[in-house]
Amino acid sequence: MLAVEAGNDVVLWARRAALAEQMNTEHVNPDYQPGVQLPESLRATDDPLGALRGAEAVVIAVPAQTLRSNLGQWRELVPLDAVVVSLMKGVELGTLDRMSQVIGEVLGVPDERIAVVSGPNLAREIARHQPAATVVACVDESVAVKLQAALQTRYFRPYTNTDVVGVELGGAVKNVIALATGIADGLDLGHNAQAAIITRGLAEMTRLGLAMGAEPLTFMGLAGLGDLVATCMSPLSRNRTFGVNLAKGFGVDEAAALTRQTAEGVKSSTAILELGRRHAVDLPITEHVSSVLYDGTEISEMVASLMSRVAKPEW
Amino acid sequence: MLAVEAGNDVVLWARRAALAEQMNTEHVNPDYQPGVQLPESLRATDDPLGALRGAEAVVIAVPAQTLRSNLGQWRELVPLDAVVVSLMKGVELGTLDRMSQVIGEVLGVPDERIAVVSGPNLAREIARHQPAATVVACVDESVAVKLQAALQTRYFRPYTNTDVVGVELGGAVKNVIALATGIADGLDLGHNAQAAIITRGLAEMTRLGLAMGAEPLTFMGLAGLGDLVATCMSPLSRNRTFGVNLAKGFGVDEAAALTRQTAEGVKSSTAILELGRRHAVDLPITEHVSSVLYDGTEISEMVASLMSRVAKPEW
Repeated sequence: MLAVEAGNDVVLWARRAALAEQMNTEHVNPDYQPGVQLPESLRATDDPLGALRGAEAVVIAVPAQTLRSNLGQWRELVPLDAVVVSLMKGVELGTLDRMSQVIGEVLGVPDERIAVVSGPNLAREIARHQPAATVVACVDESVAVKLQAALQTRYFRPYTNTDVVGVELGGAVKNVIALATGIADGLDLGHNAQAAIITRGLAEMTRLGLAMGAEPLTFMGLAGLGDLVATCMSPLSRNRTFGVNLAKGFGVDEAAALTRQTAEGVKSSTAILELGRRHAVDLPITEHVSSVLYDGTEISEMVASLMSRVAKPEW
Repeated sequence: MLAVEAGNDVVLWARRAALAEQMNTEHVNPDYQPGVQLPESLRATDDPLGALRGAEAVVIAVPAQTLRSNLGQWRELVPLDAVVVSLMKGVELGTLDRMSQVIGEVLGVPDERIAVVSGPNLAREIARHQPAATVVACVDESVAVKLQAALQTRYFRPYTNTDVVGVELGGAVKNVIALATGIADGLDLGHNAQAAIITRGLAEMTRLGLAMGAEPLTFMGLAGLGDLVATCMSPLSRNRTFGVNLAKGFGVDEAAALTRQTAEGVKSSTAILELGRRHAVDLPITEHVSSVLYDGTEISEMVASLMSRVAKPEW
């Protein structure tokens, strides 16, 4: 929708033929964006070739853990000189690859043609044309600048950055911090506690990023702090809602059923924790979230442990 | 209340004898903290000497623009070796002094005995014993460490810092950013836009701080980002509420009447803008907020101008 309104010729691929048909004829997507009227010139198809043929840019948004298998089916269809743009926010389990790395490996596309878009971009607000800013990152700045122009509208402002590692990590780690913030909110700990978690969460994200070669300023920007704050403030955030539901006593499977769409932080927390170990970085919030999700730690125990870490100078 | 529960012998000074009496007999302060039961051992008085005699620490919380005149009345009464602690978040109009500077000038206390406490500390949540963390800053770290111990409770965790300038600026500038965030929320611009304002607001605060000799890490911590996020998230924040009311069409005087207690950002915005000019730092959010408050700029015009600043790399 945004890409159409920015003046591009857009074909959207959907898994289900019926949904593609509904978008083409009724211009709505009731399962995922109820109440939103899609532009009439947006075309949808369930045929990958129909979507990919002649594409100058291929924008990918699938659940992080399904990216590799999805890409496998599209490998032969992606035009050789297309720019591939990731909207995904996660880290692959097992390989610990970032999404742009999976794209590079499976499609054989060089880094200069892989871009990442990330920022405080709650989809529902953008669909309502509420104003938002974002970061477009590519190691080749000229590609980022081209995408910036291609995605700019009256209500959506992209900024460019060449720090792909930092932008991707910001998007992945913030989902885990949003889970922790949601848990704090579900326990009625208040905004002071949530603000403390967000602050320590940004420090945690930054430490990991620095160890992996990212730029510190990226985390102070829209793709770090900005996305973290939007995700932790908004009731629209799936990861935050997942945490609230855990705190209210639902089990992990029940909370997953309640959020319906993928809460990326649930699976990525394990991969991020592994990344921390690989780079010898301490990630206390991620560790506590992961122990609730996968080791059966009680929420009350997790919060007590997190809050009682020995007081020390902030930095 | 917090100081009592941390184990201190506390006397609270109040302007009105009747309120002091009510706190002593009924242990409530219904005008400012309705529904909160105060500790029975908290003593209150309207006699400054009764409050200050023998005090090891004097903790001051008055509206920023009244500090100098209040201190004038207490000058002869503050014990010579007492540590003076500021909880105030503002910059003095005219002099552009920070609160600790006003204290030093009027009381003649050296910097080594002036401390500042600031962080994500919405008072109402602390009164409810919801968990919070804060920063205690003093150029003499041993004084900060002493205060840290004196103010620590089960639900309240102070961290030490020696960057008094950064901690004070964080507390003052965040009120102005909270006004801008409130305006965005009042206009229903969504969480993406609010997160973008918070992100650019932290950058604005950090630029001014660096020009004034503060440490960059302070702004990434609880007294910078943490306080900013809590203030911008919470409906309990007076500055945020003031901005929401402006956006809903109330005039500056009407919004002031609605918030009842002082919204420090309203007056401090002018002083902070002057500080920016003195140090040659561009403060676009503060400038836009100030022009709405004092130059009669329409809210809609202010938002359009702020959002349409030419796109450029983030940093």
